[in-house]
Parts: sequence; C-alpha cells; structure tokens
Amino acid sequence: MKTEILKLLRESEDYISGQALCEYFQVSRTAVWKVINQLKEEGYQIEAVRNRGYHIVDCPDILSREEIESQMETVWAGRHVVYFEETDSTNNQIKKLAEAGAAHGTLAVADMQKSGKGRRGRAWESPKNRNIYMSILLRPEMNPSRAPQLTLVMAMSVAQSLRQLEQVDAKIKWPNDIVLNKKKICGILTEMNTEIDYINHVVIGIGINVNDEYIPEDLKEKATSLKLEEKRHIQRGTLIAHIMKTFEANYDAFMKTKDLSFMQKEYNEILVNCSQEVTIIGVDSQYHAIAKGINETGELVIQKEDGTMDIIYSGEVSVRGIYGYV
Amino acid sequence: MKTEILKLLRESEDYISGQALCEYFQVSRTAVWKVINQLKEEGYQIEAVRNRGYHIVDCPDILSREEIESQMETVWAGRHVVYFEETDSTNNQIKKLAEAGAAHGTLAVADMQKSGKGRRGRAWESPKNRNIYMSILLRPEMNPSRAPQLTLVMAMSVAQSLRQLEQVDAKIKWPNDIVLNKKKICGILTEMNTEIDYINHVVIGIGINVNDEYIPEDLKEKATSLKLEEKRHIQRGTLIAHIMKTFEANYDAFMKTKDLSFMQKEYNEILVNCSQEVTIIGVDSQYHAIAKGINETGELVIQKEDGTMDIIYSGEVSVRGIYGYV
Repeated sequence: MKTEILKLLRESEDYISGQALCEYFQVSRTAVWKVINQLKEEGYQIEAVRNRGYHIVDCPDILSREEIESQMETVWAGRHVVYFEETDSTNNQIKKLAEAGAAHGTLAVADMQKSGKGRRGRAWESPKNRNIYMSILLRPEMNPSRAPQLTLVMAMSVAQSLRQLEQVDAKIKWPNDIVLNKKKICGILTEMNTEIDYINHVVIGIGINVNDEYIPEDLKEKATSLKLEEKRHIQRGTLIAHIMKTFEANYDAFMKTKDLSFMQKEYNEILVNCSQEVTIIGVDSQYHAIAKGINETGELVIQKEDGTMDIIYSGEVSVRGIYGYV
Repeated sequence: MKTEILKLLRESEDYISGQALCEYFQVSRTAVWKVINQLKEEGYQIEAVRNRGYHIVDCPDILSREEIESQMETVWAGRHVVYFEETDSTNNQIKKLAEAGAAHGTLAVADMQKSGKGRRGRAWESPKNRNIYMSILLRPEMNPSRAPQLTLVMAMSVAQSLRQLEQVDAKIKWPNDIVLNKKKICGILTEMNTEIDYINHVVIGIGINVNDEYIPEDLKEKATSLKLEEKRHIQRGTLIAHIMKTFEANYDAFMKTKDLSFMQKEYNEILVNCSQEVTIIGVDSQYHAIAKGINETGELVIQKEDGTMDIIYSGEVSVRGIYGYV
C-alpha cells in the first residue's frame, strides 16, 4: 500500500483526500495516516490541508523499495525490487536469488556495497547515499554465445536514459562503459551462469556515479559523476525506473530481431570513439586504426592503416582512444 | 598420513615393515597401527605378518578422500579431493567452493547425490554405493566462447580411460555422452560462470554408471552400467584417478594447441555416429544427413543429401542416430 500511495501522490497534480485513499485501499483513516507519516519521516515533504487532503511537495533522493517501485512503469524489468541499505554486492545477491529460482527481471538495488565488483574481480567503489548500484536478473532463451550482446543492450539503455531524462551528452565507450565529458560515469558487469548450450541466468550489474562529489584523487582524470558535471542533485529512484523502462523496450526488441541491428545506428552515433583513431592493444602487439562502429552482433569494426577492415571482439584487445582514458 | 600409507601399501608388491613406516612418517608404532586398523575397518584387506610387516591383499570398492587421493598421479587435476558420503550435487558443491576461492583442479566426489543434476535442470539418478558422481573446478584463461570445447575434452578423457583401464569399447555420442553397446553409461554437465570476455570458473560434472545393477525399467533400453555390460565389479577410486590423469594430459594439450586438433582424429574414431546417417532435428524442421565427425573446434560436420557440407553447433539441434537412443 505504501508503494501505491506514494505512486498516487507522485502522479497527482492536485490534492488527494484521505477519504479517497481510505476507500481506494479499503482501510481506516489511521492506516492511511500511518503511511503518510512514515513517508514524511523518510524525508518526503507531504503537505496535508484540511478538506483538501495530501499533496507531495518534494521528493528527497532516498532509496527504498517503495521509492523505486512507485515509479516503475515496466511490465517485467524491475517489477520486483529487492532493496538493500547495504550489501556485499548486488550481483552476488542476484546470483543467490537466481539459484533460489527468482523471476526474470528481478532487480536488486543497494544504497551501499561493501564489496562492489568491477570487471575481472576488480573493486567498484560504492559509498552510501550517493550512487546507483543495481543488478538485474535475466533468463533469456538463447545460445550463450549471444549473451555478451546483452551488455551492449544495457549500455545503450543507460546512455539513452541519461540523455533523455537528464539531458546530458552521455556517450558509450565500446563495449559497455558510459562516459560524460570524456570521463567514466557508469560501468557494467555482466556475469552469466551457462551450460554448454543453455543459459541458466544472466546478471547485469550497473554502477552509476550519480550524486558523488568525492572522486578519489587518482581517479579524477578518468571518472566523474552526474552531479560533478551537471552541478545539480539527481533523483536516483527516478533514474533507475527510467533505465528499466528503456532497457525493457530494448531487450524486447533484441529478443525479436535476435541481434543488435535495431539499435546499431543509434549506438554508433553516441560511440565516443566512432570515426576516430584508436589504438588496438593485443597480447603481443599494438597498432593504430580508425573505429568504424559496431556491427549487428556488437563487435567493433575497425579500418587499419592499409585500408583493410577488421573486427575486434571484446576481451581480445584493449581499445584506447587518442585522448587519455576514454 | 592415511593417504600416504594407503599409497605405499598399494604400490608395494612386498610387505612393508611397521618400523619402516614409523621412520618414514616420524611417528610411533601405535600411530601406524591405528591407521592400519582404520583401513581394515573401512574394508581394506591388510595382512600383517610378524617380522615382515603389512601387505594389502584386496581393496574394496569404497570411496573416501584417501582412497581416491592415494591413487592420484596428477600434477593439478584432482590433487585436492573434497569427498561427500552424500550431498545435493557435486556441481553445486564445486560452485560454492569456486566462489570461496578454491583452486583450479579441485575435485568433488560423492558416493550419493540427493539432487543429482543432468543438463537443463533434469535430474540425474544418483543412488549410493555404486556409481561415480564427480565435478572438477577449472579456471582456464581463455575466451568464454571456447569453453564449450572443454566438455568434449572431458568426454574424450572419460572414453579413453574406460577403453584403456577397463578395456571396454566405450564410444562418444556427440557432443559429450559416453555409450557402451549403444547405451548411455556417462553424462557430462558443464556449467560456467563467465563475464562478457572472461571466465570466472568452469565446473564439469561427470556421472558414470559403474556398478549399478538396477537401471530403472523405463531407461533400460537407453542406459546401462559398466557392471551390467562387463559382468564384473569395478574399483571406482582407480577409475576416478585414471580419468583425472587422462584429463590432465588432454587439458594441457588443449591449452597449448588452443583447439581440439590434438584429439580430433581419435575423437572421430570412437564417435558413435561417425560416417552414419543421422537426423538433424531443429526447431521447425528435421532432415537426414551423414555425420562426418567433429572439426577442430568441436562442431559436428555433416554432409547433407544434396552433397553439401554443413556445421552443427551443440544446442542448435538434436542429433539422432539411426538406431534407438544413441
């Protein structure tokens, strides 16, 4: 009921009478009043005016299951939210939930991670009260060889949400980092449990530097946050719900077309290295090339100095742009 | 010390004096005597002759960490054995050990599984005291796309061990079942935890019907055991150690050649469908073809009725031979 009252308050421009809420939920005045008080205590500014009812004046940037679910406009992605004030890592939590049979689309969100994970066992800084740390559980029916494309679908979705909702010039560093003004603001960690020809589950973890004002000194050249770039505070719950909505639409399109052709053009338009010189760093060699964009299965197409084209698979090589980190 | 005493007793054709064991392990007579008594209680027939020492007369088919480790002749595969009298599934146990940081090559063996797993969530019958249920943890440094080939490396290793050690005509049903006299005696379940371009770990589970005499009525046409076919009792510990030795050599060759070319010829020689008519059953269609054997990356090469060649990926289709199950 708390989620639904919050949703009604958010969506209504006018006051909502306590009586209407009582009738809608078939509960007592006291029950409604208790929920309103809980919300106030959590930091929501709710105005109560005699004979008119309740009206939400301001929503704080707090995270809770209700805060996130009340803004969710999806069919399956993030419909079921598991919220942690603090946890080890949301990827770990989703993996456990997956083993226990949790549904496709289940979303874990944490306000703080004690052992946030980056790729290949690296740490992901996860201080409390500032950023987004979330992981979604997927159970796609496809060959495991196609699953890496899901990471690009998520990168596209995060970039689109940041561009549409926050009106920032978010770009993608292939395959799946999001950058803003040439600095990283989002990392994505995809983990899969597969059999030889069958996916048990996929976990996509997303870490976004949202309201962080304290980027460690040694990372300042490479990483930033939305707040540092935009000089304004961002509602994390709203952004999470928007990303889920964008992702759900993209995922459904991906399952239909069975490749990335539906988003290839847009991905390449915001690909930070596109049409630029990149350095391809392999195990024994490195060389320069021009990045031409992704193909329909998500590999990076490059043009070498002798004019021939080649395809780069993720993990085979590192790709460096001509400026700094990106 | 128990593992090592068992190993010394097994390897010595002559009697080993108690005094020699005391000196070797720097322990008292009583300590040696206690271990010998434990082994006797477990079912090992050990003869003790005054002034000559101990001699092992017969080893029962019991499983224990010591029984398996005392016969292990490998460098890393199965050097560390975790033994369960009963467990849910050895794949589950190895997955947990993997998350906790267990080493490459760690082997879980169970005498009984309460929820033995087959592919795609199917059950694997796992009664006690008869069969082999084991899972090995691997941490290969390679792209996840190559990992399915590891299943074929294990299938080859099990078939080779059965042929060499037990002198039976074990064959392979592509990609990874082992059959004897056209009936299944071994299934392999590979599960992986991967990132987009990185393998966290691979678990290969092996179930072998060894001394089983009670194949369920509805499976009798399709499945059998070594004992049912060979009319003799088989030492599971010895077979496990032999498989680990064979697998270690094959795995090391695979990591060196980076594909299956090192074993392709031998695999195809014992491939049960090779040069025979098979039915390729896809989602919407089915057709006949001649199986030509695997290529160097483990896909099945087939010749269609119009003479053209094609490649079948595991999971894309089912392949049925012209007789019954195989």
